[in-house]
Amino acid sequence: MNARTTENDAMTRALELALRGPRHGVNPQVGCVLLSPEGEVLAEGWHRGAGTAHAEVAALSALADPEFARGATAVVTLEPCNHLGRTGPCSVALIEAGVARVVYAVADPGERSHGGAERMREAGIDVEQGLGAPAVEEAIRPWLTSVRLHRPFVTVKWASSLDGRAAAADGTSQWITGPAARADVHLRRADADAIVVGTGTVLADDPALTARTAGTAEQAAAGPAGAARTDSVDGLLPHQPAPVVIGNRAVPATARVHAHPVPARVFATHDLAAVLDELYADEVRSVFVEGGPTLASAFVAAGLVDEVLVYLAPTLIGGPRTALTDLGVGTIGEQLRLTVTDVTRLGDDIRIVARPGASAPTKE
Amino acid sequence: MNARTTENDAMTRALELALRGPRHGVNPQVGCVLLSPEGEVLAEGWHRGAGTAHAEVAALSALADPEFARGATAVVTLEPCNHLGRTGPCSVALIEAGVARVVYAVADPGERSHGGAERMREAGIDVEQGLGAPAVEEAIRPWLTSVRLHRPFVTVKWASSLDGRAAAADGTSQWITGPAARADVHLRRADADAIVVGTGTVLADDPALTARTAGTAEQAAAGPAGAARTDSVDGLLPHQPAPVVIGNRAVPATARVHAHPVPARVFATHDLAAVLDELYADEVRSVFVEGGPTLASAFVAAGLVDEVLVYLAPTLIGGPRTALTDLGVGTIGEQLRLTVTDVTRLGDDIRIVARPGASAPTKE
Ligand SMILES: NC(=O)c1ccc[n+]([C@@H]2O[C@H](COP(=O)([O-])OP(=O)(O)OC[C@H]3O[C@@H](n4cnc5c(N)ncnc54)[C@H](OP(=O)(O)O)[C@@H]3O)[C@@H](O)[C@H]2O)c1
Ligand SMILES: NC(=O)c1ccc[n+]([C@@H]2O[C@H](COP(=O)([O-])OP(=O)(O)OC[C@H]3O[C@@H](n4cnc5c(N)ncnc54)[C@H](OP(=O)(O)O)[C@@H]3O)[C@@H](O)[C@H]2O)c1
Repeated sequence: MNARTTENDAMTRALELALRGPRHGVNPQVGCVLLSPEGEVLAEGWHRGAGTAHAEVAALSALADPEFARGATAVVTLEPCNHLGRTGPCSVALIEAGVARVVYAVADPGERSHGGAERMREAGIDVEQGLGAPAVEEAIRPWLTSVRLHRPFVTVKWASSLDGRAAAADGTSQWITGPAARADVHLRRADADAIVVGTGTVLADDPALTARTAGTAEQAAAGPAGAARTDSVDGLLPHQPAPVVIGNRAVPATARVHAHPVPARVFATHDLAAVLDELYADEVRSVFVEGGPTLASAFVAAGLVDEVLVYLAPTLIGGPRTALTDLGVGTIGEQLRLTVTDVTRLGDDIRIVARPGASAPTKE
Repeated sequence: MNARTTENDAMTRALELALRGPRHGVNPQVGCVLLSPEGEVLAEGWHRGAGTAHAEVAALSALADPEFARGATAVVTLEPCNHLGRTGPCSVALIEAGVARVVYAVADPGERSHGGAERMREAGIDVEQGLGAPAVEEAIRPWLTSVRLHRPFVTVKWASSLDGRAAAADGTSQWITGPAARADVHLRRADADAIVVGTGTVLADDPALTARTAGTAEQAAAGPAGAARTDSVDGLLPHQPAPVVIGNRAVPATARVHAHPVPARVFATHDLAAVLDELYADEVRSVFVEGGPTLASAFVAAGLVDEVLVYLAPTLIGGPRTALTDLGVGTIGEQLRLTVTDVTRLGDDIRIVARPGASAPTKE
């Protein structure tokens, strides 16, 4: 096996390791594999979340003997950082360990953390960028987007019938989607730093806004009947997104969001960009916008959407309660084109993941 | 290979042959394979459309020597007919040819044609029903449905954005879906006996309602700009569904539907069941309802839908122009549950095929 193939395989492995870390939080998911000059895997590491070692340091610590780092190659998914975080710059750790070559996929876009590659080059390390970059870019897109745009990555989620309705004419909506789709929503909530709803949803449904395991999620999912059914905190997933409510109407002191394990934040405004700014300043890097239709549409209309997550149930409802309301699209040329990145059947339902931007010019 | 496996394989082949025949028209798609007592394939046949030989007769005619039929097994997708159609009863043809065994998948639900199995049994033939029945039932569901319900099989098709809109606020809708989806629509039109629209669509779009090949379909697809662009009849697919317009408003004498190769039928009524009755009496066995939103919703609300065909474009539009309007669903318990039978990506778009009826009770 030649060196290129070995490093390629190591990058694939490093990305696997990276994804073991949490998706939420201020730090990216990073993985690192240390290779001997002969191409043997010496050690592996990944970042397990804020306050723990960065991937490179974790890998160095996992060496059977620190001396093995001398002359080794470090294969890392992200450019080793250059800033003095809680663990010291990784670039320096690699230099001091005697690593001879560093291969990383994606440059660090962070203002305080970038420059690691340069520092290592100056120290005589052979540094290469770009191996496996597309896959890594895609995997840590939320984090990269938030660092680049200086605002949280925004996922707008809704569940609707095949004809785009979120509820029947009288407002009832339990259940449109099935258990598999609802369980999936809870897992995705747990990947986010914050879960965002409008006052309309709080006043109508009094949702718990927790991320729960399958069984208990059934009871605590948004919706008046379910909401009334349980006050238990059993079945909470390990990470809970912070509950955020946006809107001018008062949120009752008895609202269930106030019983959330993370203190609820209420923004009495319609200025979504300002809300995202404040959340970003508070280290929120990803928000999961769960509705309702008015708020979801406002995020879309404001161009503040990085990912659209639609759960389509095989049902027809018709009538006035559309999952999105008005987007300010007057004529067809103004429609918001998306690119679908995934279509998956979940139980009886269909999950569609898409992002803004047309995939490619299509012949018309 | 045992006899069972041989007959199974022959049934799979017979279904393949059946699907070579046209889907439109009063006759079902039927395939037949004749096997020697040793399990060798002696001959194959399928039905090529009204006025041509039935599958069994086609297979018998394809024998190298008519004598080979003696003692043979006929594997047929549908129960051999018993009525005197243009080709005489197939049951009698098989009896006279000396066939010893007949295996068929699905019983003939036709009032005038059933009874073939009984007649063959009385003539001493070993007759077995049911082999491969689920696949055959599924493949010829439109025909079976129309014979059982005494009305045409109804497909309701619409194209919409991901949020269920058929047009922007000003009514413009070119193009929501892409070339691959539009080409697929034309192929499916060509499978139907009739293509049905409301007066609203005729007055707004003046569509040609022809089934066209990919390139020309681009120009002739529903929509004012496209409609104005061509009067050519080039690129018509071999089979054209009859154009049908429903509604009280007058269809202008200059409307393009009147230039359709098949004379247009206009029903000045809102009674959809009555329209289907008349069409059935005129040998229409399948209709392709192409809208607009009012007519599509009326078919759904009346329970006159056997298949829903939705082309979802990766775009968000919002606003008032929903692909379905009101369905009379007041509360969520009244939603019309469907079962999704297929999800396919076509270019940038997603095609969803569904039919009425929940797939199975889901735990709620
Ligand atoms: N199917 C689903 O996926 C889903 C998900 C969630 C909710 N729902 C349903 O949605 C219904 C509630 O709908 P909704 O649309 O009233 O709820 P909503 O979107 O949660 O709340 C709407 C409110 O958000 C506030 N808001 C904040 N920023 C805004 C902005 N930029 N533009 C406009 N409004 C802004 C306004 O509140 P103020 O007037 O107080 O300022 C507005 O009235 C409930 O019945 C619920 O069951 C469905
Ligand atoms: N996205 C798509 O897939 C698609 C497909 C086709 C059309 N469109 C768009 O749809 C728009 C036209 O919408 P539309 O809803 O007015 O068109 P439509 O559904 O074609 O026509 C509506 C008319 O159908 C008649 N009708 C017949 N039976 C009816 C019944 N049982 N109930 C109610 N009405 C019945 C009524 O006409 P009378 O009043 O004359 O009695 C009614 O006004 C056009 O802009 C077109 O571009 C979109």
